[in-house]
Parts: sequence; C-alpha cells; structure tokens
Amino acid sequence: MIVTQEAPPVRSPRGGRPRDPSRDGVIRAAILRLLAEVGYGALTMDAVAAEAGVGKATIYRRWRTKQDLVADTITELNATTVTPADTGSLQTDLREVLYSIVDVINGPMGAATRALLSTVTHHPALGEAFGDGPVGVWRRAFGQVFARAEARGELRPGLAGTVVAEALMAPLVQRWLMTGHLVTRDYADEVLGDVALPLLRANWGPSA
Amino acid sequence: MIVTQEAPPVRSPRGGRPRDPSRDGVIRAAILRLLAEVGYGALTMDAVAAEAGVGKATIYRRWRTKQDLVADTITELNATTVTPADTGSLQTDLREVLYSIVDVINGPMGAATRALLSTVTHHPALGEAFGDGPVGVWRRAFGQVFARAEARGELRPGLAGTVVAEALMAPLVQRWLMTGHLVTRDYADEVLGDVALPLLRANWGPSA
Repeated sequence: MIVTQEAPPVRSPRGGRPRDPSRDGVIRAAILRLLAEVGYGALTMDAVAAEAGVGKATIYRRWRTKQDLVADTITELNATTVTPADTGSLQTDLREVLYSIVDVINGPMGAATRALLSTVTHHPALGEAFGDGPVGVWRRAFGQVFARAEARGELRPGLAGTVVAEALMAPLVQRWLMTGHLVTRDYADEVLGDVALPLLRANWGPSA
Repeated sequence: MIVTQEAPPVRSPRGGRPRDPSRDGVIRAAILRLLAEVGYGALTMDAVAAEAGVGKATIYRRWRTKQDLVADTITELNATTVTPADTGSLQTDLREVLYSIVDVINGPMGAATRALLSTVTHHPALGEAFGDGPVGVWRRAFGQVFARAEARGELRPGLAGTVVAEALMAPLVQRWLMTGHLVTRDYADEVLGDVALPLLRANWGPSA
C-alpha cells in the first residue's frame, strides 16, 4: 500500500525564509491529535503550536484562523492518494484495501474524523473541506482495484460509483461510528467473505 | 410502523406532585433540538428548561447534571421498540424498515445523534448510554422482519446478528454520517434492490 500526498505549494508570503514542507507534516499530525483529544471547539492555535513544538508565529504566518488551519488540514488529507498493492487477484486486492481502512479507523485520522463529524454541520467552510471525508479516499482506492479486476476479466465494467461499490466498505464505517465495537481485521475478513464477495459475484461477475 | 417506548416509572422523589409523563416527551424533544443546534458542550440545563417551556426546578428535580439528563434521554431513545408493518413479503417489509431509517436520519433524532458522535468517546457515561445508538433499534426492527420471513420460508434461519444483517442498513448510515449527500427514499430503494436483496438471495434464500 503506497500512500502519497500532493506536495503543498511552498509559499513565502512575507518574503522570509521559504516554508519547510516537513514541518507541515508535524503540524498536521499535531492538529489530528488535538482534534481527537479536545475536539474542534476547544482547539486553539496556541495549543497546535505547543503540540507541534513550533513557534506561534510559524502557525499564524500560514493560517489566520483556527478554521483556516483545520479546513486546510482536512483538504490535504482528502487529497491523499492511496495506491493499493496489486496482488493480481480481486479478493486479495479488496482485502488489502479493507485492512488499510481498518488501520485508518483505528489511527489518529480515525479519531480526528470522529471529532469533526459533529462540527462540520455547523461550519460551512469545514463541511465543504470535509466533503465525503475519508470515504472519498477509500472510494478512489477501490476504483483502482475495480479497474484492475475489469482488465483481468474478473469484474464487469461500471462498478465504480454504484451503491454496490459503497456497500463494500459501509459495514466498517457503520461499526466504527455507530457502535461501541472495535473494528478489527477479523471483522474486515467477515465483511469481505460474507458481504463484499457475495455482492460482487451476484451481479458483477464476468458471467453475470 | 408502530413506535412504542417503555413507559418511564413515575417517581415523586420529594413527595411532591407526581411527575407528568407527557412533559417528559416535551423535555426530551427539547434536548434533541438543542443537541442538534448547539451540541453537547454548549447545552445547559437552563436552555433545556427554556426550550421545553418548563420551570428550571422541573428539570433539576429529575436530573442532577447535564450528563444525567442527556444519558437518560439516550437510554430512553434506545429503548424504543419499532414494530415494522407486516406486509406479508420480505421485500416490502425491508423497504418499510429502510424508509423508517431514512425518516429518523433526516429528523431531529438524526441531527442529535450526529451531535453526540464526537462527544460519546470523551464521556464514558454517555458512551455507555449510547451503546450501538439507533443501530440497535433498527437491528431489532430487522430482526422482526427476518423472523416473519423465516416463518414464511422466504429466508433461511440465522440471519439476525450476522454481518450480512448489518450490511443491509450500512450504506444508509455511511452516506448519512460520512458524506455530504442527502439520504433519500430513492437511495433506500437502490440499497434495497442493488445491495440488500442480492445479498439475501446469494446466501440466505430458502434454496441457498
């Protein structure tokens, strides 16, 4: 699984030192941790600076407000491109994507996403940046898996964008957000074997 | 669709007038509206009293703290019993349950649930009350539909509690919580026709 992010443009708006892109990653990680810990309402620019171990001026030079900073972080995350390992089989490719979703759900990004869910409806700028949230990233990863399987003749074309494509990951999302139960790789295996593969075989197999 | 709630015990802890159960419904509705509007963090006991149009003493007589009040409201909601209309067919019974989920998602309870999602992880008492959230109520409604279909011979027994049972509603939950798109009855029809029925036919039909 290869994860890449679009390189942010290096700006130096006040003619000072050029921005250090590696520092952006540190700041974004600090924002995710704070969102998970205290939520958007209690997050402050000063706390982000302290958590990231950078000067306040570094934060304020790039973002005028807390909303700018969080919206920018969400936008960067949603631009993530995940390239699922090409295992040569639909079943194992799907398993890899489902496992990577499990990892994201259980990591800092999962906790930060949950913290944002109650907030995005009240802040249009955040809602716009949030868009489909991590689901958009996962949808694109599935899209690559579908395209390979179509090329191998394992799937009929046209699956991407359908409700069936959405349904492949939906049980993970539901369990994560709505229930108190852990989302594990074992659960992902159940979703793969009992939901995803039967659904695809039913209507999306080459002979369907 | 018949919705019933367990009648709360009528207590009169200080020997005063017995509690008016109809007032409880008014207070709970006020709590849901406020959760949706301002979230848990900014909700106050005084605002609940004002929104419900009752005296503060009425609120404080029953609940000592905001956390008690919200946890109690969540517990009551989760005790709701939904009795889906018995249409005599699995397909139309399922449609009725999916439509009722759409209605809940788009109503005050949906907005309040979203507002709670970021909060329950930080307040163990709320998390415990939340449990599986509305998913628990919906799961029981599906359970009744499955039992009838099993009795008619439309389904093999044993579906309740499986990941397939969870998958029938999961696309609605995912679309509601993670994307900016509306959850409509048309979308529920797509979920029914393209996900739920194919999944059940694949492994849960009488001849499977």
